[in-house]
Amino acid sequence: MAMSEARFGSVEDVADALADLQEPDGQAEAAARARDAVLTKPPGALGRLEELAIWYAAWRGDPRPGLARPQIVVFAGNHGIVGQGVSAFPAEVTAQMVANFAAGGAAINQLARTFGASLDVHPLDLDRPTADFTQGPAMSEQECLAALSTGWAAVADDADLLVVGEMGIGNTTSAAALACALWGGAAADWTGRGTGLDDTALSAKAGIVSRGLERNATLLGDPMGALRAVGGRELAAMAGAILRARHARIPVILDGFICTAAASVWEKARPGALDHCVAGHLSAEGGHGRLLAAIGKPPLLSLGLRLGEGSGAALAVGVLQGALACHSGMATFAEAGVTDG
Amino acid sequence: MAMSEARFGSVEDVADALADLQEPDGQAEAAARARDAVLTKPPGALGRLEELAIWYAAWRGDPRPGLARPQIVVFAGNHGIVGQGVSAFPAEVTAQMVANFAAGGAAINQLARTFGASLDVHPLDLDRPTADFTQGPAMSEQECLAALSTGWAAVADDADLLVVGEMGIGNTTSAAALACALWGGAAADWTGRGTGLDDTALSAKAGIVSRGLERNATLLGDPMGALRAVGGRELAAMAGAILRARHARIPVILDGFICTAAASVWEKARPGALDHCVAGHLSAEGGHGRLLAAIGKPPLLSLGLRLGEGSGAALAVGVLQGALACHSGMATFAEAGVTDG
Repeated sequence: MAMSEARFGSVEDVADALADLQEPDGQAEAAARARDAVLTKPPGALGRLEELAIWYAAWRGDPRPGLARPQIVVFAGNHGIVGQGVSAFPAEVTAQMVANFAAGGAAINQLARTFGASLDVHPLDLDRPTADFTQGPAMSEQECLAALSTGWAAVADDADLLVVGEMGIGNTTSAAALACALWGGAAADWTGRGTGLDDTALSAKAGIVSRGLERNATLLGDPMGALRAVGGRELAAMAGAILRARHARIPVILDGFICTAAASVWEKARPGALDHCVAGHLSAEGGHGRLLAAIGKPPLLSLGLRLGEGSGAALAVGVLQGALACHSGMATFAEAGVTDG
Repeated sequence: MAMSEARFGSVEDVADALADLQEPDGQAEAAARARDAVLTKPPGALGRLEELAIWYAAWRGDPRPGLARPQIVVFAGNHGIVGQGVSAFPAEVTAQMVANFAAGGAAINQLARTFGASLDVHPLDLDRPTADFTQGPAMSEQECLAALSTGWAAVADDADLLVVGEMGIGNTTSAAALACALWGGAAADWTGRGTGLDDTALSAKAGIVSRGLERNATLLGDPMGALRAVGGRELAAMAGAILRARHARIPVILDGFICTAAASVWEKARPGALDHCVAGHLSAEGGHGRLLAAIGKPPLLSLGLRLGEGSGAALAVGVLQGALACHSGMATFAEAGVTDG
């Protein structure tokens, strides 16, 4: 893990990485758009699949791209805030589910296999939960930087698509606090039922989020401060992986509320920093729709998932595969001898 | 084609087939539901994927089913109503696109390959368009029965999922008239832009639909009469295939407006006749949302597709594959040693 922990030694290193982003290839984008216009279909008839394929072509710098090596990375972390009773499941389930990932028994294992993606799982110091953020920052600066670095290092150089997922009992509470810190509004706007809270527990959870934000108010002025104050290791690692993907021009499909909250740290710090990302789905978790609206990303799917693990994004890999198969595989009007309307 | 044309010799044969429907396996459904409840995820966390897998299990009579042989069948037909100028494309495009299907160059070819489905294409008397339905019925009773029979015969006995698609310049006009005849309302409620009409042409198209319904008023009292009066061969064939799937307990993913209009003949004639079908997507074609509401089927996807060919339903095959992979492949709490909340 030596290399991975070296990437970000200071907050300045993160700022530098965020200042130096790759951009999409305008020439590939124009060529992909021109190709789309002559494929054997009425203009626009493939709806969002068309823009999706062109977006992917632009980021890969290839007007007629394939999708060969999608990578799913799941980060797992534990949360001190669980001591406040914010989850229907006990904290030990995080490690149990990591074992389930390793054994191939979780939803994300099945979805990775279905859509031909690789799957890597990174448990992050599960025996050292983050601090209870109603008492102070969840992470020290060094803990947060280490998790960001682990995320950065987890991305495969040769991946051509990235999905990041998470497992961490209590992490919808962290994500709600982070989203509220970054995007404003009331704690209750961002607080959802997680794995299945009732109304009373939901209301208590919003109160805990609110107290955490008050307690850490001095750190919330900048997005990185918010991430370490109320986030968690797996959120920071997801953010690190998403930033690395931008540097490597690897397109990203965002998963649900927790993933999107982590990603949105970059969008808040530098608008446009998530241009290499699409929203895979709208989760059933309360604040996700509001968060997707805040970062301006309409979801590809809306099937009521609220599992995490990268599951909603993994399902959307199938949509992207379909979009690219059409874009790169279809005949043009001229090739097929079809009369263009 | 001798066998296929034998299935329905009379309207009574169709009524008999509709009276004698297969039902889902309640025992398999209960077992699938019990399995879903103990998989390693919070209850309901896979959202609509859970009900989708249970629905499929019930129809296949297998509480832990796979999906091995999805079949896509595309029917093509030509329409006399094209003479009224209802489409942005000329009628010869129907045959040109059939050639494109055969050569592997269309969107549906790419999607079939992406999701591992077989693809069969049936052109239906393309050199004999249906009659212009503003002048009288589009099809004679025998023509309609022949097309229904072709659809019935097109379904593979060993398929474990069916998608039916269509190609037919002018057929959104037929589908609008059929939907209006079956489900009421004004012609304009059901008339959409098809492959890309402007406002003036859209308004003219609604007028043509309206005239067709007036001209055929005496036939519209029963759903089969409506199908032959304002439908088309590919619509009748889709209906025949969907009815056959019900008899063989093969689940069906419905495609867009035209497919759903054809299928809805059965739902109108016998409520519940489409219980073996789910709606694959919400098309961008104007009347599709209203039609899905009429038959009570929320779409799995909503990506602005309006291509036909079965493309939206084919894309939804990926969603079903993901749902079944999770349902049948995941570990239970007991198997994985995960604490159940």
